[in-house]
This record gives sequence, C-alpha cells and structure tokens, in this order.
Amino acid sequence: MSLFVQKFGGSSLASLENIKSIAQKIKKAKQSGHDIVVVASAMGGETDKLVAMGQQLSAGLPSLREMDVLLSTGEQCAVALLAIALNAAECPAVTLLGSQIKICTDSNHGKAHISDIETDKIWHALHSNKVVVIPGFQGVSDNGDITTLGRGGSDTTAVAIAAVLQADECQIYTDVDGVYTADPRVVPRAELLSEVGLSDMLELSSLGAKVLQIRAVELASKKNVPMRVLSSFGGDTQGTLVCAHSNVNSKKAITGVVTSISEACVTLCGMPNDTQSLAKILHLLSSVNVEVDMLVQNVTRDNMLDISFIVQQENVGLVNSIILPKVAEYGIQALHINEQVAKLSVVGIGLRSNAAVLAKVSAVLGDLKVHAHLTSASEVKVSVIIDENSIEECIKALHSVFELDCVEI
Amino acid sequence: MSLFVQKFGGSSLASLENIKSIAQKIKKAKQSGHDIVVVASAMGGETDKLVAMGQQLSAGLPSLREMDVLLSTGEQCAVALLAIALNAAECPAVTLLGSQIKICTDSNHGKAHISDIETDKIWHALHSNKVVVIPGFQGVSDNGDITTLGRGGSDTTAVAIAAVLQADECQIYTDVDGVYTADPRVVPRAELLSEVGLSDMLELSSLGAKVLQIRAVELASKKNVPMRVLSSFGGDTQGTLVCAHSNVNSKKAITGVVTSISEACVTLCGMPNDTQSLAKILHLLSSVNVEVDMLVQNVTRDNMLDISFIVQQENVGLVNSIILPKVAEYGIQALHINEQVAKLSVVGIGLRSNAAVLAKVSAVLGDLKVHAHLTSASEVKVSVIIDENSIEECIKALHSVFELDCVEI
Repeated sequence: MSLFVQKFGGSSLASLENIKSIAQKIKKAKQSGHDIVVVASAMGGETDKLVAMGQQLSAGLPSLREMDVLLSTGEQCAVALLAIALNAAECPAVTLLGSQIKICTDSNHGKAHISDIETDKIWHALHSNKVVVIPGFQGVSDNGDITTLGRGGSDTTAVAIAAVLQADECQIYTDVDGVYTADPRVVPRAELLSEVGLSDMLELSSLGAKVLQIRAVELASKKNVPMRVLSSFGGDTQGTLVCAHSNVNSKKAITGVVTSISEACVTLCGMPNDTQSLAKILHLLSSVNVEVDMLVQNVTRDNMLDISFIVQQENVGLVNSIILPKVAEYGIQALHINEQVAKLSVVGIGLRSNAAVLAKVSAVLGDLKVHAHLTSASEVKVSVIIDENSIEECIKALHSVFELDCVEI
Repeated sequence: MSLFVQKFGGSSLASLENIKSIAQKIKKAKQSGHDIVVVASAMGGETDKLVAMGQQLSAGLPSLREMDVLLSTGEQCAVALLAIALNAAECPAVTLLGSQIKICTDSNHGKAHISDIETDKIWHALHSNKVVVIPGFQGVSDNGDITTLGRGGSDTTAVAIAAVLQADECQIYTDVDGVYTADPRVVPRAELLSEVGLSDMLELSSLGAKVLQIRAVELASKKNVPMRVLSSFGGDTQGTLVCAHSNVNSKKAITGVVTSISEACVTLCGMPNDTQSLAKILHLLSSVNVEVDMLVQNVTRDNMLDISFIVQQENVGLVNSIILPKVAEYGIQALHINEQVAKLSVVGIGLRSNAAVLAKVSAVLGDLKVHAHLTSASEVKVSVIIDENSIEECIKALHSVFELDCVEI
C-alpha cells in the first residue's frame, strides 16, 4: 500500500461533470488499496472571476488581506464539491481547509510561503480510511488570517503535503500527458519523457514549460519528493516521473527544447564606461523588484557602454517608468525595448559540453538565418533570444538536430 | 457614540454596484461617529446556486458536513468583497470569519445553533477604529468544522452578535421599508409601523411575514436586543423599531394582518372515538419531525372521530407516506389533504378580547361568503384557514375593518 498525494488543477475541475469523473479516478486509486490525499485548485476560471471582482471594487488596488479571504473561496468551493461527489460515489472523503490542518504560512498576503504543515488531522482521517481533500493555494498566518500562495500555488501545496507526509509520490494531474521534449503542439514529433531529472525539470519549468510550477519543483527538489505528471482525462498512462536521479535520456545531449514568449529585451546604449553605470541600473531595477536575466554588457569602439538584458513583458511599464527619469543623469543615450522576442532554450543535465551544444545551436540558427540577440549558457542549459516570429522553425530544427524526434512506429 | 450591528441580506448585495452603494451607507454611519459591525449574507442567488451544485453531484443527498464547507463560501465571498469596497472607499474594514472570531455552534450541520461568540477579536478591531465585517449564517463546531445555521441564519448571527456586544441596535437592512400592518403589495393602504413590540413581531414572523427570521426575533426577544428593520436602498428613513416594550398602536385592537399560503390542511375522517386515536397520529407525525398546527378534533353523530390539522405544504409527501400504510390498522376511513388553503391571522398584544376580535373576523368572512375551515385563537392572535383564492379580498376587508388603513394625506 502506498500513500499518494494527487493534485488536480482548475481545468480538471472546470465543470460538475469533470468533478464527477475526477471523483471516479480518485475512487479507483483508493480501491487499489492506496491512501489518497487530494489537493484541488479552484474550478477553472473561478480565480480569474474573483480577482476581477476584487479589482473592480477597488480601482485595481484591493486590500491584500481581504483578497486572500476572497480568493480562498475558489478552492474551498472546489474541495467541498469534490468531497460531496466522492461521498456520493461511496468513497468516504473529508475536506480539511488550510486553516483547519493547519497549513502555516508567513503573512505575505497573495504570495505567502508555507512554513509548516500540521499532520495530525490528516493522519487521523487517513486512519479512518477516508480520502482527505485539501484546498491548494491557501494557508493560514500566525495570527489566524487566511493567506494565499500566489498563482499556481496548488502545485506547491501538493508537494509540501507530500513532503510532510513522506508520500510515495506527488501526482500532478494536468491537461497534458506528461513532460515532452518540446511543446507537442509546435513539434508534432516531440517525445513524451517517461522520466526526467528534478534539475532538468527545474530548468524546463523556469524556462517556460507550463507543466509544473517552478516553486513546486524547487520544493520537490529540496525535499526529495518524487513527482509524477499525469493526464486528468487520458486513461491509465504512466505520465512522466520527475525524480532526483534519472538516467533516462543520458545518451542524448539534451533533455528538451523550451520556448517562452513572455520576455522583452531591454537595451541601454552609450552610457559612460565607468565602474558605476551597471551597478546604478541594477540598483534601480531591484528597487522595484524587477528581475533581470541574460544580462550582457559591451564596450563600443568609442569607449561607451551598451547594456542589454531580458525582463518579463509585464514589467516593461515599470522599467520605462524607473529608467526614463534617469536618462540624463546617468548619461544614457538611447533606451530600446523590444517585446517581439522569444527565448529558446535547450536543457539537459547531459549538457556535458556547453560549447558543443552552443555551436550546434548557432549552426542551426545560422542555417535558418535567424539572429540571436542575446545568448547565455550554463551547466544545464543554453538559451538564445531570437525574434518571436522565428520561434517555430527554430524549435523544430533544434528538436531534430538534437535527435529528440520520436521514432515513428 | 453608539455601537450598531448592521445586517445586509443577499438582495442588498446582489451586484458589485449594490456592494459599492452599501459600502457608502456603512461609511456614512461610521463617519457619524458610531462603531459598526456588519453582518453580511451571500450575494443574492449565490446560495441557491451552491445548493444546486451540491445536490447535482450527490443525487440530492450531499454530505452535510461538506455542504456547510460549500455554502459558507457564499458569505465568505460577500464579506471579502464588502471589506474590499469599504477599504477602497477609505473606510478601514476587516473581515472576521465564523472560524476566526469564533462563532461557536453545535455540530448540527445545516441547522446549527450558536452556543457562544468570542468577542476579543471584534473589540480589538473596533478599538483600532475599523468596521468589522462578519459573514452571517456560519459558525464553527467544537472540533473546528464549519457549520451553517440554516436558511435566513444571517439575521440570527446579527442578533447574536448584537447580544454579546450589547449593541445599541441590531439594524436589519432589507428590500422593504420596515414592518407594515399588512403586505403593502396586497393592501395598498397598509401602514408602516414606526415601532412594534417583540411579541407582536414574533407572531408576525411565525405567521408568515417575511421581514425577519423567526429564530432571530426569538433570540432578540430572549436577549432583549433592540432590532430595527430598514431599507437598504431607501434613503434615511427610520424603518421600524422592534423592541421589548412598545406602546405604539395600543389604541388599535390589532397590530397587523398576516397571510401565508405555504400550508396544507389535513383531515382524517371516521377514526374510532377512543383515547388512543389522536395520540397514535401525533406520534406518527412527530416520528418524522412534521410540525402540526391548528389541530381540531370533532366527534361525529355516529360517534366517530374526525381530526383536522395544518402542516407545511413541503411536508405533504411525508405525511402521506407515513399515514397511508396505517389507514387499515388505525381504522381511518378517509384521508383528505387540501393544499389550496391559506392562513390569515390578525395579530396584536392589543387583542384584549379574543372573542370580540374573532367575532369581527367571522362577520367579515361571513359578509364575503368565505368559509373558515379551521379557526384558532390565542392571547395575541386569531388565525383562520380559508380557501387560497379568497385571501386578497379578506385581508383588505380585515385591514379596513380593524382601522389599520393609513390616513390619506
């Protein structure tokens, strides 16, 4: 008998029919003799609806404490419905809310971090042979206030609960079959990975693969929780096991190709080439919590400094508002922001030679006459920033060149 | 400076625009220097929607514990939105949920009774000059489960909180202006009462006036809480004060005329006239929790027993299913159930002479050629059961005969 934590996302719970079907899936796992703890997100679309209501009542600046009271109703509603469906299907189930268990967090409303989870009530319910249904995304602060963990926080809740219960697997049910070598909607020959290493998964998530939330993968990595990505509606496939030590794909140079189009490329031209310029810019950005990626600096022939870096598109307004007032003071001759870019990354613990992978990537881009605006390489990944409209041809070509295309049957 | 508990029902909170307008009303009261505790129901229609979802997932038999987890999200959502609107209107407000305060109840899911309310957190928030927003209808049981108080429970929450805080008034905001001598939609000349005694209000509520929940009036009466019924959207009218000692209307014979059409009249004919027949029937009905009203028995010329009584229409199926199998055993010769009846009551502490009031009622019905199926009289009311389609002409005639019609200006 194993203990599984099963997490179901909003798209798996979007209608009452879906909830009934998920209840049957859970019942089946329970009848196989396993202990089951379910973590559920809000029904699909519900959180967006609640956010919109809170924004509308407050000209976009709602009280953060009260937004958490509001948003947590989404998951509370979903777990109650799921528990009602389970009990009606004669699979005894009980809900335990974040404030009941307790899922202790800091008081950082809207993006709280879990500090501890009490397990007494969970064990007690499991011992009574019940399925325990826990709302994801929410917790309770020291002073008893409801908190939420931020978007995608349900994955994190599931991993954290799997960690404290030392569950055999944390199963993340989603609307995809598992983790692929590339987005199968873009690359039809992308291969479903039966296993992927946690470090690779961490890179894939941080680079834009939407299968798992990066905070959840980080936590799983830290706590050594085996995760499995499975399809909510796809029958009994095995999905992808995400585990600390994976040997699969070790013969291939890379694990997967990931793209993201949420970036913007910022270039500051013609600053004085002194030791302070870069620091001043970074200080400005960090003062408004803008994260910077793939930063490069370049000294021009006339001894001026050019700086380029990547920010998330949602931060472009903030970047403009913080840098523009300083243009004269800092001696910035031009500020360019290009939002029509995409980030293309090849990932793999197998990247034994950065240089060889980078050379291959460059050759593929060269063949396609695609210009790389920025390039970065680490031990486990190589990323390039290219024009957004070239992304599809590049990912297909790389997928093939790195021999990820699945063998046709 | 006074302390007011203000309760807003679902129809007062049916849209975001309504919520904004209620927030302005609360802010105005707060700015007048009063301490304000708000009790809110779920947004109009929300509870019905949640009930339907729970029923649909469970073929009409949802887990009662989980239904309470589900239903309580309705009020939680409403208080969060109201607190967000208040804070956005620069009227500092904080929500305190049933499980946070705590509103302690028994474990009777779906119809729990409040046993105690802790006031520390409420006083602390009031002391910080904040409006406290509390969800009605919900509490928490000894073992930390969410409970609900049953339909209309928000009125009860408001009165209970007003009682423990010893508030100056418990103000119930509704979609009517206050308590009238009769339903103003039926009797255009019905008069708005500026004051009504608690005992009269108790009778009015129990006899079908929908303004206040009977449990709330009972509690107010027991705890001596002054209540005021006011309009949510009707400007600064004074509404109706419901208080222990009211002298208003003492010159009139009655306080008001109330009707209800949710009754059914049950008649059992031709039972043996022995000492056990009535007891057996009452025992049967009480075994399925059916409440009986206006029971009369009559011995026929051939020494048989006829019994008639009133039940709620919703219990007719239950009554049939429990009595029919016993027809032979108990020697019942006929079972008639008439659902096309209405209950018409005249109410008033001023009923100094039952007989005189009853005589007047009988005369009015006689003039209109309306037959009274059943009649009952107590110190504070006279009720008759008549055909449903006669109700409007009777109520108008009684309202006029008892001189309740307001004077035309």
